[in-house]
Amino acid sequence: MSAPVIEKPALRAGAFGNAKALSCRECGHHVELGPHYACPECFGPLEIAYDFGTVTREQIEAGPRNIWRYKALLPVPDDIESSPNTEPGFTRLLKADNLAAELGLTRLWVKDDSTNPTNSFKDRVVACALSAARELGAKVFACPSTGNLANAVAAAGARAGIKTVVFIPSNLEQPKQVNSAVFTDSLVAVDGNYDDVNKLASEIAGEEGGWAFVNVNVRPFYAEGSKTLGYEIAEQLGWRLPDQVVIPVASGSQLTKVHKAFQELVELGLVEAKPYRIYGAQAEGCSPVSAAYKAGVDAIRPVKPDTIAKSLAIGNPADGIYVLDICRETGGAVEDVTDDEVRAGIVLLARTEGIFTETAGGTTVAVLKKLVETGQLDTSLETVVINTGHGLKTLDAVSGAVRPAATIAPTYAAFAATGIA
Amino acid sequence: MSAPVIEKPALRAGAFGNAKALSCRECGHHVELGPHYACPECFGPLEIAYDFGTVTREQIEAGPRNIWRYKALLPVPDDIESSPNTEPGFTRLLKADNLAAELGLTRLWVKDDSTNPTNSFKDRVVACALSAARELGAKVFACPSTGNLANAVAAAGARAGIKTVVFIPSNLEQPKQVNSAVFTDSLVAVDGNYDDVNKLASEIAGEEGGWAFVNVNVRPFYAEGSKTLGYEIAEQLGWRLPDQVVIPVASGSQLTKVHKAFQELVELGLVEAKPYRIYGAQAEGCSPVSAAYKAGVDAIRPVKPDTIAKSLAIGNPADGIYVLDICRETGGAVEDVTDDEVRAGIVLLARTEGIFTETAGGTTVAVLKKLVETGQLDTSLETVVINTGHGLKTLDAVSGAVRPAATIAPTYAAFAATGIA
Ligand SMILES: Cc1ncc(COP(=O)(O)O)c(C=O)c1O
Ligand SMILES: Cc1ncc(COP(=O)(O)O)c(C=O)c1O
Ligand SMILES: [Zn+2]
Ligand SMILES: [Zn+2]
Repeated sequence: MSAPVIEKPALRAGAFGNAKALSCRECGHHVELGPHYACPECFGPLEIAYDFGTVTREQIEAGPRNIWRYKALLPVPDDIESSPNTEPGFTRLLKADNLAAELGLTRLWVKDDSTNPTNSFKDRVVACALSAARELGAKVFACPSTGNLANAVAAAGARAGIKTVVFIPSNLEQPKQVNSAVFTDSLVAVDGNYDDVNKLASEIAGEEGGWAFVNVNVRPFYAEGSKTLGYEIAEQLGWRLPDQVVIPVASGSQLTKVHKAFQELVELGLVEAKPYRIYGAQAEGCSPVSAAYKAGVDAIRPVKPDTIAKSLAIGNPADGIYVLDICRETGGAVEDVTDDEVRAGIVLLARTEGIFTETAGGTTVAVLKKLVETGQLDTSLETVVINTGHGLKTLDAVSGAVRPAATIAPTYAAFAATGIA
Repeated sequence: MSAPVIEKPALRAGAFGNAKALSCRECGHHVELGPHYACPECFGPLEIAYDFGTVTREQIEAGPRNIWRYKALLPVPDDIESSPNTEPGFTRLLKADNLAAELGLTRLWVKDDSTNPTNSFKDRVVACALSAARELGAKVFACPSTGNLANAVAAAGARAGIKTVVFIPSNLEQPKQVNSAVFTDSLVAVDGNYDDVNKLASEIAGEEGGWAFVNVNVRPFYAEGSKTLGYEIAEQLGWRLPDQVVIPVASGSQLTKVHKAFQELVELGLVEAKPYRIYGAQAEGCSPVSAAYKAGVDAIRPVKPDTIAKSLAIGNPADGIYVLDICRETGGAVEDVTDDEVRAGIVLLARTEGIFTETAGGTTVAVLKKLVETGQLDTSLETVVINTGHGLKTLDAVSGAVRPAATIAPTYAAFAATGIA
């Protein structure tokens, strides 16, 4: 299925860097690089295929302090840094000794993507999608979103000076709405859940010419951006892989791409090969992948989401089956937690490590805790947990639970009476 | 005036790195390093005096990707990276061509501190204050705050595992309240404005033993953290100074420290000497420094703040007179803008550069615009504007003005009817 929505311009040489073709994840069929996302033979998802040649650590380390240091491993041109973009990535990898002690882990790191330009990992994927949209000559930059993607697309579109239209469920958290509307005049609220919004986006992509929907018709380019999370973790650990990684799952794209990144690093000789386990985290109110994992089945049964973790509320996850494969093959697992556990996860990470995460991160931390408690995670191994978003976007999740200890008159006597000293 | 609040422990060798003494900004009198902030001779503010020796670009470039790359220039020990802290700094310096074009500037950069760990430049100063608190053996880590400092102190305190007490005006924006309370059980709301809260903090510092108030009794150490903004701007420009810098002013500390950083870099031979102009930005509803600048007087008359730019709402700015000196000496200026201009500044930065700033940043961008319009800034020179905070913390400032363009049913027909395509 080839989307006709972007008229094929004359592609410039090197428009997609070392990317050579689109390759079907199911049947291996190759398609030329373009705004295509489903295999014409079997309707399987298309992925980017590369011819990397030699890529060295030195080459990467000499690059900029953002995802473009890995440009040789992404479907972007060699001059990508000179096109206006939000310059995401190279976020903190924090040693999390307090949280580790709390949970009984030996060695734990938090990869903190809440400090990205629009405060989620979505800035990474959007930067890659923007490059593809530009090279393909798209006139409109767009997405359906559970919130964070909307923020990232609207910001990147503003900076790039391209018309940007963003679709969100109308019940989205207010901070995520304002954080999109501030960047674009064309934020569209849709009465429905994310899966409804996503369907609408596919329809529009089929009807309108020149629209690049980042996670629809340029999805293969977009998705590659998540690989940079994997590259950074390895580089920041001193060019080696961790033993265990816990990753939130909505569509499942991010998780599959972190795995792909690790494999590429090994193939390129940038890190030593070693076993590692990948774990997926979902909220109970939208846990189709976790349910399939626990049932021991391969098929994912779509659900109607009902959880405070709205950024993870994709009931029909496009990459769910690949998440299952990867977690099973690597010896990991997929687990889910209740909304109360999500809230507790937010506060736990804040109180131990000084990081304020959103519900997606609360989910991931709570799943980490549950994996330890249920013996599914080896506490003696080095573990990385990915924090993908920011608590300021989902304030309501904790605003009832955390408040000032006291409100006092501005006098020492009033303070002394609180008993805090 | 020597604050007796921290019992002097046996300081370890190198506790404050290359810092050698506290020196009075007014009379030059020296005091030994410790929890002192006012000169015993003249009550002038104490500053850190160093003996830097040789510091090279290579040494700095080999350091971590956070403020500790400049540790040789800060009052921190050589092993500072190994103590738990939030690892702030080394934020984006973005070329802002769209905003430049909009304002008629030739070459403009945004130094974007909204991507710091708790989304403001305060993480820098707090990291330095935390080091001092630790080395001095403080039992409690505390601050009075207009909001951002509270977030930074609460987060850093949680990560460091030290008891943390934070004082805020009770009318503070809700996001900034939650963003502190999530980290600490001891957030204290005070019925009064910032200047009342600040006075209360000084009282507590005098009454309680072992409290390190970051911006009171360890203020000399704290304030040095803002120098890293200046160092980073120079390093990220390729080790050279810009021609003009626009900086928001609350207490005025940050502005004076950016200037100090530039001077130190020149003295150390790390950049070439050249003229540069420093500009201060205030909101009209709290513009004591701008008022003095415009009146051509040296004394600052305290005001009662009334502005949406609450993070800048310090009516009696400790370093205001030094801001006046620096802006006058360098050929810059201090300017102020109305709350409506602040709101417009937020939207302008968002729409042109994809950065969502808070009211402080809206103030700074609006002042930049006004400086151009009034001919006070040279549009042909290279200019840097500092964005010190994040829009998610002051949502209400723009939530009325920016909203979805439409709310529709999830159908193509409904979308087509909006006229957005
Ligand atoms: C904060 C956050 N974390 C994780 C995810 C999951 O991403 P994916 O769809 O790649 O599984 C999302 C998706 O929107 C998100 O917003
Ligand atoms: C976002 C922001 N910008 C600027 C300032 C001004 O800092 P200073 O007190 O150093 O002038 C503050 C102070 O609280 C702030 O929160
Ligand atoms: Zn196929
Ligand atoms: Zn003195």
